[in-house]
Amino acid sequence: MAEVAELAGVSISTVSKVANGSADVGEETRARVAELLQRYEYVPRRKRRTFLTVTVLVRDISLATNVEFLAGAMAEAQSQRVQLALEQHKDDEPEEGWIEQFTPQVTRAVIALSSALRAEHHEQLASRGIPLIVVYPQDTENLVAPSIGATDWAGGVSAAKHLLSLGHSRFAMLAGPHHTLVARARLSGFRDALESAGAPLAPQHVVEGTFDYESGIRQALELLRGPDRPTAIFAASDRQAMGALEAARRLGLRVPEDLSLVGFDDIAPSSMTAPPLTTVAQPLKEMGALAITMALSLIENQPLAVRDAVLTTSLVVRGSTGTPPA
Amino acid sequence: MAEVAELAGVSISTVSKVANGSADVGEETRARVAELLQRYEYVPRRKRRTFLTVTVLVRDISLATNVEFLAGAMAEAQSQRVQLALEQHKDDEPEEGWIEQFTPQVTRAVIALSSALRAEHHEQLASRGIPLIVVYPQDTENLVAPSIGATDWAGGVSAAKHLLSLGHSRFAMLAGPHHTLVARARLSGFRDALESAGAPLAPQHVVEGTFDYESGIRQALELLRGPDRPTAIFAASDRQAMGALEAARRLGLRVPEDLSLVGFDDIAPSSMTAPPLTTVAQPLKEMGALAITMALSLIENQPLAVRDAVLTTSLVVRGSTGTPPA
Repeated sequence: MAEVAELAGVSISTVSKVANGSADVGEETRARVAELLQRYEYVPRRKRRTFLTVTVLVRDISLATNVEFLAGAMAEAQSQRVQLALEQHKDDEPEEGWIEQFTPQVTRAVIALSSALRAEHHEQLASRGIPLIVVYPQDTENLVAPSIGATDWAGGVSAAKHLLSLGHSRFAMLAGPHHTLVARARLSGFRDALESAGAPLAPQHVVEGTFDYESGIRQALELLRGPDRPTAIFAASDRQAMGALEAARRLGLRVPEDLSLVGFDDIAPSSMTAPPLTTVAQPLKEMGALAITMALSLIENQPLAVRDAVLTTSLVVRGSTGTPPA
Repeated sequence: MAEVAELAGVSISTVSKVANGSADVGEETRARVAELLQRYEYVPRRKRRTFLTVTVLVRDISLATNVEFLAGAMAEAQSQRVQLALEQHKDDEPEEGWIEQFTPQVTRAVIALSSALRAEHHEQLASRGIPLIVVYPQDTENLVAPSIGATDWAGGVSAAKHLLSLGHSRFAMLAGPHHTLVARARLSGFRDALESAGAPLAPQHVVEGTFDYESGIRQALELLRGPDRPTAIFAASDRQAMGALEAARRLGLRVPEDLSLVGFDDIAPSSMTAPPLTTVAQPLKEMGALAITMALSLIENQPLAVRDAVLTTSLVVRGSTGTPPA
């Protein structure tokens, strides 16, 4: 405070007034003092944690899975009095030198969400004393950072069991990109459960795509126009399932009367479709809250309860699944 | 740096190594120095702006309109090298004393998005030298803070003109809550344009609700089950329009063959429905970018180009509108 007072050419009591939000300081003086206070990050003792910043790094904040995760992270950050900052990198991969903006003065931990950070980025952050937490790890073998994921394989199993229990026998899968771990795990769980039940998934009934709506439309049109039309489809994401709803509409098929659909994620829009989607819910909010908890442990050099946390998915039954057509 | 070195009991060159991310400092020392650097917010000259934090205050980050706004704010913050922080208040109204967490050390400006901040909150922030920008102002008369909104009334007009041009003559409106300015403006524009075209909107064809999906279902069921069923519905939000899609499905009505639907907002999910929604797009990303620009001007005591900015809406025609049934 004394330093700021000297730099600003005002008394310490004026600096104190500005720091405490008192109204009786002139406009220009206040602005000057406030700027210096922020630059030197003056920290009243009772509020210290507010000044601890954790950065969430997202590739596309418009993705509803990211939004749900952020909602959970925000709530936890708020209750822990941590400031939550948001960053993105523009391309699929951070540009050269991009990682250098993260210094201990800017943030104390980075949570990378569906990002393309690689081992080298992790090392760059680690060398600055900034821990990294990876959500949806794409490559567990080479992963050096602690991670948070969900039980994708078990989620695929639960989708299969639900559709089997409704009496379906002709299944198909709108798979996600095979290069992602989560897409492979979801398909594998679905396939394994069907096989165990004596209803193996035919290779022509698995169509690979990406996690988005347009892909869902294309994949579902291919399956629904093909021979031996399935009565039950499991999509690797809710957005693909939303695309399948549109494909069904184009073909004049009713959901769930003619076709049952199960999605994956439980993003907010999946309860607002016509009909609302049955889906395998990821505990996205809990994953977000856990990421903050883990970040704080790492910042404070505490051991992590679990280094690679895998949270449990659960089936949410809504209107898009029913008994197969007679 | 010298101060941090003294407090940490290390040499200035060690502090410099930590600040610049050099690997050759012991783990414990680095953590201690990094914490002090963050507390004192050490600012390398070439990166100064990164340390300027602007806070976006949202009530519910899961709302897709907020997400689009944030995406725009993030991109602009990134290009201006400003750190973007996120905060929420839990209830409809911030709890007593909640505003006190915002000090010039924590943030330099607050952007309040669909929030319930009142004039007194604005004054509390102003007395600390923290400018406030209000997005979607609810009460322009008593508003003391600069604001950002969209041309809601003109958006209502464009929805009416589009439906008139398709040949519709039986219209209805799923209105938003009348206590909000934006809901009244959207209804008023729609009504005025229909009246000018000699097709006045009957009072029983305006049903008030809230901006959400469940409300859209209820409102649309009421209208579609009533006498003199409309062939064209304008909803005050995309979520209400999504509810109307579900109501139509329940009644066995096809969109757009039996019923045309126009939404408002152009949130991401509105292009992923079955069929995709025709909607009045708010320039949400531009609004987010503008909020950052305005915040920087206010922080730097520059005059604002426009104090209360109103950005232009535009009609996006997708699959939910067509000619009326014969």
